[in-house]
Amino acid sequence: MELATEVCKEAARQGAHPLIVAYPTEFARVALDSTPLEDLVVTPRHLLEAMKASDVDIIIVSPANTRVFESADSKRMAIRSKASEPISEEQLKKRWNVTLHPTNALAQDAGMSLTEYKDFVYSAMIRDWDAEVDRMRKLKSDMDNASEVRLMGKDTDLSFSIKGRTAVIDDAKYNLPGGEVFTAPLDDSATGKIYYDLPSLYGKEVTDIRLTFDKGVVVDYSASKNESLLKELIETDEGSRRLGEFGIGTNRGINRFTKRILFDEKMAETVHLAIGRAYKECGGINKSAVHWDMIKTMKPGEIIMDGKTVQKDGKFSWE
Amino acid sequence: MELATEVCKEAARQGAHPLIVAYPTEFARVALDSTPLEDLVVTPRHLLEAMKASDVDIIIVSPANTRVFESADSKRMAIRSKASEPISEEQLKKRWNVTLHPTNALAQDAGMSLTEYKDFVYSAMIRDWDAEVDRMRKLKSDMDNASEVRLMGKDTDLSFSIKGRTAVIDDAKYNLPGGEVFTAPLDDSATGKIYYDLPSLYGKEVTDIRLTFDKGVVVDYSASKNESLLKELIETDEGSRRLGEFGIGTNRGINRFTKRILFDEKMAETVHLAIGRAYKECGGINKSAVHWDMIKTMKPGEIIMDGKTVQKDGKFSWE
Repeated sequence: MELATEVCKEAARQGAHPLIVAYPTEFARVALDSTPLEDLVVTPRHLLEAMKASDVDIIIVSPANTRVFESADSKRMAIRSKASEPISEEQLKKRWNVTLHPTNALAQDAGMSLTEYKDFVYSAMIRDWDAEVDRMRKLKSDMDNASEVRLMGKDTDLSFSIKGRTAVIDDAKYNLPGGEVFTAPLDDSATGKIYYDLPSLYGKEVTDIRLTFDKGVVVDYSASKNESLLKELIETDEGSRRLGEFGIGTNRGINRFTKRILFDEKMAETVHLAIGRAYKECGGINKSAVHWDMIKTMKPGEIIMDGKTVQKDGKFSWE
Repeated sequence: MELATEVCKEAARQGAHPLIVAYPTEFARVALDSTPLEDLVVTPRHLLEAMKASDVDIIIVSPANTRVFESADSKRMAIRSKASEPISEEQLKKRWNVTLHPTNALAQDAGMSLTEYKDFVYSAMIRDWDAEVDRMRKLKSDMDNASEVRLMGKDTDLSFSIKGRTAVIDDAKYNLPGGEVFTAPLDDSATGKIYYDLPSLYGKEVTDIRLTFDKGVVVDYSASKNESLLKELIETDEGSRRLGEFGIGTNRGINRFTKRILFDEKMAETVHLAIGRAYKECGGINKSAVHWDMIKTMKPGEIIMDGKTVQKDGKFSWE
């Protein structure tokens, strides 16, 4: 609420009419558990209409407790996710930004004091974004010109096509912090297997995710923790069985894994491959109620595009 | 946010999709001051659309500081009030409730510690509402049958008609606490003068308000503090020059003035006469961007209906 207040004050000065929608963690969990099923499937119309009538959407993640969904029913989470899809679709038509305001809950997940965590967060956010964009431009150019991508690493050999798709530089306009270049794999192209060595969170923590793809579709999967949630998410709809995003992290201000995808996916020396909804700005067409980022360290590892090594053990070829 | 969370949890259990809209006091003031004028006159469309798409509106007043508007520009306050009118109109079509959650700011205004203030608040709210309604039914019956009302008191002799209008019992459905019976004076009927001995708040505190009416319209007014705000409010539009509500307080759990109209207007041994918008459920037709309640103690004083004393020095004739 602190940051929301400051953002809204600045927005008002520029002539905006800011509307603060709060979503306390305790309410979120009770709503998920207690809303009758016939109501849970319904898209909240007031929020949908408010989103339609808005120009900009700024999401500030600032949970009092990051584990409120730890023991939640994953089937109900998928249902709620699907009911919210029209709102997400509207949101993506707007100018939007997702950022984070430090809380003790987030610091705790990251294994830091709140003071340390604030330093970490602001190191990642307050950067020379012009210089960052210059660095990312080189990578974008490689990705725009590439057709076949191959990722090699521990228990990993995955190939997919990004031919004709557009690589997008995350210059901190949509995410703060920014620091990744991402695109949308062709929907039928992913073949092979990938091992995500870092945990992925979707309310709950899912660890050691392994996915096997054939012609773009997940044909096998496993996880060492919360595999049932992985199953629910993959099986949400047709689009959630396919890749929606391939991203490469470039933010060297993010020097450690903090269990928060907004930061982790930007971490230098990592890639992430999301299942579900693709971004239209990449030319992606995959639709889904789900967009779930899972990340993997690439040290050791190799990113190969059209047979050429672009990154090896975390270092780009031009570095 | 505490109470909002609890209310939303309960609403979700009943199948609702609660949306929490927060309005921090500091933001409210900066928005009023800093929004360019051409934007301030615009009705916020996202909030309007969200209101239209909602079934129920619950307003929880819980300010961190009750004086954020103390030095605000009253002209801008009137402009913003007018821009919000379509939202208020939508809200009145819904099921709605206004209540309050104790804060130190509210306790401070009331001259109490937070613990004392909580006791006061819950004494006013947690009552035997069936018994309260029985008491109010007698008063409603008198008001429904009456044509002419005359209020006598210190510097006060005001007459107006409520003929054909419907007296509404505040049984805590629209306001919590409830405890008043209110109606809408006929728009052209008020004649005479009234002295409001208790302060009235509209962002700022306006004290010793004196109004003189002729054929329903305010023809003279004065205040000992913030008279300019009184002027702005009266002159907002055609409807703000006329009475919109006449109410009689009946809640004996409210035993003192706490500078909070939600409570003060329900205080036993008081009446309130609002300028501006009338309630349709009373049969009222007066329209305005303003609805401003001002209250007056009736001890000493007398409420006379069709020549018969209904209340004298705070005691109803049947008590």
